[in-house]
Amino acid sequence: MPVRFAAVGLDHAHIFGMVSGLLEAGAELVGLASDDPDAAVCQQLRTMQPDVPWFDDAQQLIDDPTIDLIATAAIPVRRGDIAIAALEAGKDVLTDKPGVVTYDQLEAIKKLVAEKGRFWDVVFSERFNVRSAIKAGELVRAGRIGRVVQTLGLGPHRERDRAHLSGGSGRPDWFYDVTTYGGILNDIASHQIDQFLWLTGSAAGDVVSATVANFNHPDHPDFQDFGDMTLASDTAQGYVRVDWFTPQGLPTWGDGRLVIVGTEGYIELRKYVDIEGRPGTDHLFVADQQGTEYIDCSDVELTFFGDVIADVTNRTNTAVPQEHTFEVSRLGILAQEKATVRKLF
Amino acid sequence: MPVRFAAVGLDHAHIFGMVSGLLEAGAELVGLASDDPDAAVCQQLRTMQPDVPWFDDAQQLIDDPTIDLIATAAIPVRRGDIAIAALEAGKDVLTDKPGVVTYDQLEAIKKLVAEKGRFWDVVFSERFNVRSAIKAGELVRAGRIGRVVQTLGLGPHRERDRAHLSGGSGRPDWFYDVTTYGGILNDIASHQIDQFLWLTGSAAGDVVSATVANFNHPDHPDFQDFGDMTLASDTAQGYVRVDWFTPQGLPTWGDGRLVIVGTEGYIELRKYVDIEGRPGTDHLFVADQQGTEYIDCSDVELTFFGDVIADVTNRTNTAVPQEHTFEVSRLGILAQEKATVRKLF
Repeated sequence: MPVRFAAVGLDHAHIFGMVSGLLEAGAELVGLASDDPDAAVCQQLRTMQPDVPWFDDAQQLIDDPTIDLIATAAIPVRRGDIAIAALEAGKDVLTDKPGVVTYDQLEAIKKLVAEKGRFWDVVFSERFNVRSAIKAGELVRAGRIGRVVQTLGLGPHRERDRAHLSGGSGRPDWFYDVTTYGGILNDIASHQIDQFLWLTGSAAGDVVSATVANFNHPDHPDFQDFGDMTLASDTAQGYVRVDWFTPQGLPTWGDGRLVIVGTEGYIELRKYVDIEGRPGTDHLFVADQQGTEYIDCSDVELTFFGDVIADVTNRTNTAVPQEHTFEVSRLGILAQEKATVRKLF
Repeated sequence: MPVRFAAVGLDHAHIFGMVSGLLEAGAELVGLASDDPDAAVCQQLRTMQPDVPWFDDAQQLIDDPTIDLIATAAIPVRRGDIAIAALEAGKDVLTDKPGVVTYDQLEAIKKLVAEKGRFWDVVFSERFNVRSAIKAGELVRAGRIGRVVQTLGLGPHRERDRAHLSGGSGRPDWFYDVTTYGGILNDIASHQIDQFLWLTGSAAGDVVSATVANFNHPDHPDFQDFGDMTLASDTAQGYVRVDWFTPQGLPTWGDGRLVIVGTEGYIELRKYVDIEGRPGTDHLFVADQQGTEYIDCSDVELTFFGDVIADVTNRTNTAVPQEHTFEVSRLGILAQEKATVRKLF
């Protein structure tokens, strides 16, 4: 029997990748539900999946004993409650990042995961779905650059894409409201927090310093168009910068980079574009004591969604350790809480 | 009459570039002196300049009324005193960075600069002598990427070069002693502090957070092989990472980068090497609202040493504003003072 899942909370376009990843891994999508049926993402998913039934009441899906897994990419502030309801009903959960925006949500989820024996996986996407990031992990684990002393992650994002889903009218209102998206560090820096802990082999970390800023959005005074943070673990440092300043002239949504400094070398990833360089994505550069090397990572295998499905079936925790997901989520909220808030307006 | 200068304090190899820069700009080198005549750098400079007289007593040069300018690349902790003595004698000063390691030195220099009407220029080299950095300044000033919201500077350095001056035996003892080199942030991050203020158009800045660490030097417990800091000015943020982890396999001493994020685009510099990419140095990449562009900066004109000489002759301050030099120096000391110290041993 295939794993049966429902998609509940269809506000962010990340749901497309989550659904297609689960379908390709062999799961069956048995229902859709969302608070805002008029949202562009929701309508597009229904168009893409015309045979999957729509439910006006998400609770019907959550209560359905034949469903194993609830996937969600709701507005960030609502993801926690959807996960809590799903866990209470004995479902596994796969959520877009950020999975939570408050400590209360996180604590409730931790408690339910323990009580119900289900998992709560947050798709910190990059490390799971970006082939160069997976390759970097393999090289680091193999000792190629010695002991990792710092990760430096840059996550610039495009705010308005000419070809954006919304048809060019821009982002939805919740995108600009910190009470609904949860803050730039908890949202888009969660990728880099995840990679920091993972690549430095750290079970736990701390936020040394953080800043969020509105540098260029006078019409949305509470929007955070820039954020950065310094992280520390027992053995290493981390730095993250995220922003919404990708210009229209870049041929993709963001020039995501990761630099991993080790005691015996370093690795640089140009994840989505090699500006004025090689075509395609997933460019990995390494310098070690012997020389330099370019590695095209386009043939690296992606296993994340298959691992999630196997975890549902086998009651294992192979896709991503549960405690790691909790710690990344805690650090995202902590960064947001500790951040100095700068407004130029 | 050409500007006459003496080189006093010959411990760091940066003196070679300072001397050749001044000579090429038309100045005349009239004397050499240094506390440690046996230092490798000192001996090499004497060999390179066999016709320039050596003085056992540096004060003779400092007191010589026919000398206009004192250049120094002494051990960092001694540069301040050399500058103070030179200013007291009515000389202009050109010093390797860091120019000072304490606030007391800086205050004494500020006072003397005001009293004597002479200048104290610190060679924050990169912006003056790195063609891609000069080009980046031109593009920023021309508004190519809008208003700058962050500079991110990476300054990895090689600790032991196979072809190092020392003949392969490594760095001198003072290199590993924080009381003589002044700390990694004040030393090698001064480049990036300079570029932060300059490229964001900021007269002043602050250190938000800083860390220095010994990650991999158990034999030199007080050595700082890693440092980073977050900077802020009225309008922008800055981040700097410096380290001594450049591996032997990289074909140059360090993969220095600068990323300048603006409201309308960004610029990346690969200053000294384009790893597994284009040959040579000074690679500039820009993305703006229209597209992306690669700019080879190898033909950008260098004017710094000529400007210094003109400043000596004309009593002007064109090479670098004096207040800017003071502020960069203050921030370097402040970063070192505020830094959390991490030792893995």
